[in-house]
Amino acid sequence: MAAGKKTPIKGLEDLFLDGLKDIYYAEKKITKALPKMAKAAQGEEVVAAFEKHLGETQAQVQRLEKVFELLGEAAKGKTCPAIDGILEEGDEIAQEYKGASALDAGLVAAAQAVEHYEIARYGTLITWAELLGQSDAADILKETLAEEEATDEALSKLGESGVNERAMQQAA
Amino acid sequence: MAAGKKTPIKGLEDLFLDGLKDIYYAEKKITKALPKMAKAAQGEEVVAAFEKHLGETQAQVQRLEKVFELLGEAAKGKTCPAIDGILEEGDEIAQEYKGASALDAGLVAAAQAVEHYEIARYGTLITWAELLGQSDAADILKETLAEEEATDEALSKLGESGVNERAMQQAA
Repeated sequence: MAAGKKTPIKGLEDLFLDGLKDIYYAEKKITKALPKMAKAAQGEEVVAAFEKHLGETQAQVQRLEKVFELLGEAAKGKTCPAIDGILEEGDEIAQEYKGASALDAGLVAAAQAVEHYEIARYGTLITWAELLGQSDAADILKETLAEEEATDEALSKLGESGVNERAMQQAA
Repeated sequence: MAAGKKTPIKGLEDLFLDGLKDIYYAEKKITKALPKMAKAAQGEEVVAAFEKHLGETQAQVQRLEKVFELLGEAAKGKTCPAIDGILEEGDEIAQEYKGASALDAGLVAAAQAVEHYEIARYGTLITWAELLGQSDAADILKETLAEEEATDEALSKLGESGVNERAMQQAA
């Protein structure tokens, strides 16, 4: 507790690189989770939404690899307990609601929690990239952020219009 | 894999109640995490932001208790691995960046990940409450959602203007 001054100076570059490793690990985990979520889902439109986002997520992994390259760093993940926990909740829904009318509504909600984690992280990474003068990296990250926001919006619409109403009617 | 039909029908009411328990657990965890984050933070404005949000979070716990009451259910939490993971990442930042110039930038980013988890969850809960005809519950949840969004925005401004630039200058 005492020798605070011995800590190496860790600046924004370190934070940026750690953040990239965190989201790189997360995106790779998500590419493994989405096929399972698509398999668990019942409604065609939910399956289609998860499959579409799988394609996007694979491209997002490649974009992160480009950012690492721009920084002259090896693309490397760092265990991210947040995404592990968020995906664990999705697994729980898939198990607890298997065969239940509300399954898809729960899976869509789980996917939105994933999207919001990513939206938070990419938002922060873009701010940091810009402050560090890494505008090329910022531009690449902005492409992904726009996709995550669009996915979240599409999932919201799915939830409001089809999936949740069906869950309610079948349960009634 | 076979006996899918034996699963009890779990509808939107179950999902809504499970979601409330999840966020109730999360909010209570956050009331414990925020004082630690405020203590770890260096800049006055970051400490103030965390302390302000602690007060809001305590009120949000009480609002959730009102929603449980409206549903005629006991207020009860359910372990939420997502918030556990997200807060664990905040702890890691506090440890790894202790005494470092980028500490506050990292803590603000960690707090924004918390906010986005809550924004995702409250958004879903409001949709479900409305579909279930629980408009009083929806109104209560909307108050909290507005607070979480305002907090996220305030943290973004903190990150863009003060905290991150300081982290950058000190590291240069």
